[in-house]
Amino acid sequence: MPELDLSLPSVDLTRAVCDIPSVSDDETTLADAIFAAVSALPHLDVVRDGDTIVARTQLGRAQRVVIAGHIDTVPINDNLPTRPVVEDGAQYLWGRGTVDMKAGVAVQLKLAAELVAPRVDITWMWYDHEEVAAELNGLTRLAANRPDLFAGDFAILGEPSNGQVEGGCNGNLRAIVRTRGVRAHSARAWIGDNAIHRAAPILARLADHTPEEVEVEGLVYREGLNAVRVSGGVAGNVIPDLCEVEVNYRFAPSRSIDEAVAVVERFFDGYEVEVVDLAGGARPGLDAPLAREFVAAVGAEPRPKYGWTDVARFSALGVPAVNYGPGDPSLAHHDEERVPVAQIDAVERGLRAWLSAP
Amino acid sequence: MPELDLSLPSVDLTRAVCDIPSVSDDETTLADAIFAAVSALPHLDVVRDGDTIVARTQLGRAQRVVIAGHIDTVPINDNLPTRPVVEDGAQYLWGRGTVDMKAGVAVQLKLAAELVAPRVDITWMWYDHEEVAAELNGLTRLAANRPDLFAGDFAILGEPSNGQVEGGCNGNLRAIVRTRGVRAHSARAWIGDNAIHRAAPILARLADHTPEEVEVEGLVYREGLNAVRVSGGVAGNVIPDLCEVEVNYRFAPSRSIDEAVAVVERFFDGYEVEVVDLAGGARPGLDAPLAREFVAAVGAEPRPKYGWTDVARFSALGVPAVNYGPGDPSLAHHDEERVPVAQIDAVERGLRAWLSAP
Repeated sequence: MPELDLSLPSVDLTRAVCDIPSVSDDETTLADAIFAAVSALPHLDVVRDGDTIVARTQLGRAQRVVIAGHIDTVPINDNLPTRPVVEDGAQYLWGRGTVDMKAGVAVQLKLAAELVAPRVDITWMWYDHEEVAAELNGLTRLAANRPDLFAGDFAILGEPSNGQVEGGCNGNLRAIVRTRGVRAHSARAWIGDNAIHRAAPILARLADHTPEEVEVEGLVYREGLNAVRVSGGVAGNVIPDLCEVEVNYRFAPSRSIDEAVAVVERFFDGYEVEVVDLAGGARPGLDAPLAREFVAAVGAEPRPKYGWTDVARFSALGVPAVNYGPGDPSLAHHDEERVPVAQIDAVERGLRAWLSAP
Repeated sequence: MPELDLSLPSVDLTRAVCDIPSVSDDETTLADAIFAAVSALPHLDVVRDGDTIVARTQLGRAQRVVIAGHIDTVPINDNLPTRPVVEDGAQYLWGRGTVDMKAGVAVQLKLAAELVAPRVDITWMWYDHEEVAAELNGLTRLAANRPDLFAGDFAILGEPSNGQVEGGCNGNLRAIVRTRGVRAHSARAWIGDNAIHRAAPILARLADHTPEEVEVEGLVYREGLNAVRVSGGVAGNVIPDLCEVEVNYRFAPSRSIDEAVAVVERFFDGYEVEVVDLAGGARPGLDAPLAREFVAAVGAEPRPKYGWTDVARFSALGVPAVNYGPGDPSLAHHDEERVPVAQIDAVERGLRAWLSAP
């Protein structure tokens, strides 16, 4: 089993964490390594639930902060192992997971080991299956098995935010849009009805669409509606009777989930639409006292978060939550995913300063 | 191993042959049964090459006719086992393979067993992998291993032709039309470039296309250009960087294969096109003396064949070839594939009469 040395500098620890591949549904090796490393720390109370690991200080502090990060990544595309790269004179760590979000996880692991007496009690959470359907998310399972572990006054997700504080998040909907036809031999196509040809207007509507920008509590959320998968076909000589386009709608946190469903149904009017994944967004939540204090301590300008993150889950539980982590979210899932080393260090310094302050 | 009783009436033998599933690449069970049945016939010289079986009379006749049928089918879609159905007072056998082309194969097997002294020598061929790429076709392999077996003065393919004689066939081209983009997290789609959206005009061109009708030697061939598969997508939250549309072009036998490639490249101008399967058509070939004699003997009106069939292969070898088999080709590959019992009997009578005539 690979071992993690939490005394390494954050950038080296990031590299070690990234070089243990952990594509969604294949996180066990990394989870084992994290569990072993934090179980060795006497100041933490460690609980494991599947491939999710929770480590808590129990100092009897007046307030508790949850600091969480997912340990899975999207599929590798020839971008592991990691390597150091230099761009415009700045040092980066390149490779799958460096941005989304193993640099954040590495900083958390390092601070979990070193902050034996923080100013607030801390619940560290490292969890699985964030990059796939919401019902598979490790926090969904943990919330069912151990809802008590989510107790807290404030939560920080280490999702990439360029070392800035990003408030709230867009909601996330996935749906299958279907066309149906009639199979026939492709030599006599006029007998059948081609379901793939029937999907032409679906792709055309998507290609022509301009997403909205929606202001919520002073932050502007940019929406998105995209095909993420398309499939259809039976054999090379058969007119296909089914075509499925999977679409992903990212919607502003001012929209309810019902409204998001209505938007998609209206957009694909005339087609069969099946919603397969749905998670509401989160309003910025930057008016909470601990949130204001945290933003001031790390010296950041709050921005909107475009991607759905688990801040929405904490927000729904009444725990104000923000995103704060190294890495440019524009490069998450990108083949050229890479994190500036300076941001890893800055986030480590920011969190350490705030959590250590008297 | 299932056994085939070649003394059964043709319709019952058709049923037995259909109820041994033999989707392309899974023909061995049926090939074993055919091999066992014809190997028991002392008047035939039997050769097996993979799942292709060739059985020849060696009577020293002045002329030799090749009579061939493929034993594979397209995928089953809840349409096996076969069942008898009645429609408008007529009896049908319903199920995968009944039309394309196991009724034809059953008639051939029965006549192979019973015609011990035909007027011409006969080379019976039952072969695998017709419903997939041309390079997998059992006859491609046989032509490489045993080209001598293709010698003949005339060839009859038992492909469905409603019991009529269908001359020649359209050519067949398959190509992949690709769009490329740039992956990104779907929460920030504007960073990436959606390859599926880029495929919208490909599907629109296909949906708007009206195929040509081309007259060749008095017969009118109807062309077709269709998407038969579409695929694209990486994960539910990733902007896809690749979309592939597989298209199938059926082209009139007056077009060369080079011309067919040019038509497709022109049609998808601006896109990456890769031809993955290409087989030329066959001109009707009804001016050959044996062909004229055969048409007169079975009392049929020649028609054009739309689908590509292996007549093109014989045609290319200089052996005039026609399609003659039971079943409506419009129902080939159809979920409701069904063959009129009367056509099975008529084709058996037609072939038997011509082959037995003094």
